[in-house]
Amino acid sequence: KTKIKQNLDELAEKIREGSRLHLAKAITLLESAHPEDQSDAQDLLKKMLPYTGDSIRIGITGVPGAGKSTFIEAFGKMLCERGHRVAVLAIDPSSTVNGGSILGDKTRMEQLSREPNAFIRPSPSAGTLGGVHKKTRETMLLCEAAGYDIVLIETMGVGQSETIVRGMVDFFLLLVLTGAGDELQGMKKGIMELADTIIVHKADGDNLRPAQRTMSEYKRIQHFLQSATPGWDTRTHLVSSLENKGLSRIQETIEEFRETCMKTGFWSSRRTKQTTEWFQAMIRDRLIDTFYANNDTKQRVSQFEKQITEGQMTVSQAVDLLFSDEKTELI
Amino acid sequence: KTKIKQNLDELAEKIREGSRLHLAKAITLLESAHPEDQSDAQDLLKKMLPYTGDSIRIGITGVPGAGKSTFIEAFGKMLCERGHRVAVLAIDPSSTVNGGSILGDKTRMEQLSREPNAFIRPSPSAGTLGGVHKKTRETMLLCEAAGYDIVLIETMGVGQSETIVRGMVDFFLLLVLTGAGDELQGMKKGIMELADTIIVHKADGDNLRPAQRTMSEYKRIQHFLQSATPGWDTRTHLVSSLENKGLSRIQETIEEFRETCMKTGFWSSRRTKQTTEWFQAMIRDRLIDTFYANNDTKQRVSQFEKQITEGQMTVSQAVDLLFSDEKTELI
Repeated sequence: KTKIKQNLDELAEKIREGSRLHLAKAITLLESAHPEDQSDAQDLLKKMLPYTGDSIRIGITGVPGAGKSTFIEAFGKMLCERGHRVAVLAIDPSSTVNGGSILGDKTRMEQLSREPNAFIRPSPSAGTLGGVHKKTRETMLLCEAAGYDIVLIETMGVGQSETIVRGMVDFFLLLVLTGAGDELQGMKKGIMELADTIIVHKADGDNLRPAQRTMSEYKRIQHFLQSATPGWDTRTHLVSSLENKGLSRIQETIEEFRETCMKTGFWSSRRTKQTTEWFQAMIRDRLIDTFYANNDTKQRVSQFEKQITEGQMTVSQAVDLLFSDEKTELI
Repeated sequence: KTKIKQNLDELAEKIREGSRLHLAKAITLLESAHPEDQSDAQDLLKKMLPYTGDSIRIGITGVPGAGKSTFIEAFGKMLCERGHRVAVLAIDPSSTVNGGSILGDKTRMEQLSREPNAFIRPSPSAGTLGGVHKKTRETMLLCEAAGYDIVLIETMGVGQSETIVRGMVDFFLLLVLTGAGDELQGMKKGIMELADTIIVHKADGDNLRPAQRTMSEYKRIQHFLQSATPGWDTRTHLVSSLENKGLSRIQETIEEFRETCMKTGFWSSRRTKQTTEWFQAMIRDRLIDTFYANNDTKQRVSQFEKQITEGQMTVSQAVDLLFSDEKTELI
């Protein structure tokens, strides 16, 4: 017990000193399924809490083929060159093994991973819930404690991932391609209204003129949609990651966004709200898990479901029966 | 007990015979807060289940001032004249008294309420959850058992009401006004993507030309949004309830919609999904209600919430403590 405590203290110290190796180790601990590891990870996280919160948390999503990785690499590199420390959290679809994904590190964002001020962590897709790793929020906190002042969270674009990531970041970027009309057909409902800035990506070469037209198109549509952040009108910008164009503008926009939200007080009120909602969502999830963990209950629910859809029972009657007939210790 | 059973049998019979008085009485029973009334109402509803499901369920929402009541009155009258039996369910914001709202009946939709084939039921706003009355879904079933082949559910446009109503209807109508640009600024996020048909309302007199422009505008925007129903492209139509113009077209559109969805099988699969989701949502709500009903638990949650936002505790630790420390009988 004392040994573990010492190890955790050492781990915390190394992370605070900026050791990427120890940060990666801590995240692996966080993602571990072992109850003891989880308990250790929470103890570690608690130690780290005083040092969290000082980053800009940025969510990044995009239509398929929009070039998220390419953008993150170019944008991340620029930020590093300007003295920032950048953490990139992403789901690695190729990896299903718990405990990190070495291969992912090497094959994607190769240039950025060589930056000493960058930390890239592709989490295994195994631990995802609605398309986001269950531990991404806590991983973000660890990265902040490790001194990363910009955290980029890439979404896989599946399930509820955009909404979930929106619920843990300050600023949300949407990457789109030219040919808005066709593109948008495949875009998920409501995605545009989550974004604080839309980037028309791959705005280079022959694609520059269509990209300009697409930008105007998006600006027009923007008028018809609500902005994701009160007091901030969603921006649309052109970016070429290939030619490193437009990246400075994105950084400036994010800085302006932060200043605006600091002034209105929305910056901290959104964060408090996000934390509270996270807590409440976790309570809800635990309640539902505990409820359905009982095999008897699970069977009765599906039996009632059948009776309901066959018109033999009302929904209210089924719920009443579930909650009155039997007394199970739930918490 | 036998007496009540007899009464319920009689009530069921009268409803089936088309007595609006008895239908109203049954809905009042459904909306009652008394446990005995609730139990009776569920017994009654169970009796009625074999006769439910044969209507077209239509949700209606609109931007403020779009003229929902005027439209429902004109549309409902036309449907009655064409031999349909039309039930209108709405929240009555003026009424807070449980047990029906006589005044609402008289002041709104006066003409429609005189139709023998129409049944208008404004439910008190007191029993709403997210902007929809908790019993609207079951009221709809009673109306179907009473032989109403078209049920119109009007949303108040507050809270989650549009999404909730979308989850209980086959077809969803959105009423908008001319001047889309300004209008849409005040439109709730994602509302357009819930609609199977958008009606540009008040398309009459000097307003006709702007309405046509608005319609083109909406059709354009429609391209950028996903349709609410697979296999059905959202339509946009002009309607003047004042001049009774465009109402036939709406009925035809709804008929076409039904045929399309019947062919794809989506009509019944959506309904089954809606019922199952309703059941699951009611289980979730009951779990959460039961959990927070415990005063001790409630206090601990808000105490933990404070500690979390002050950085003294991680969210996972708080949830673990809530679910391990104490054993409460929940179900």
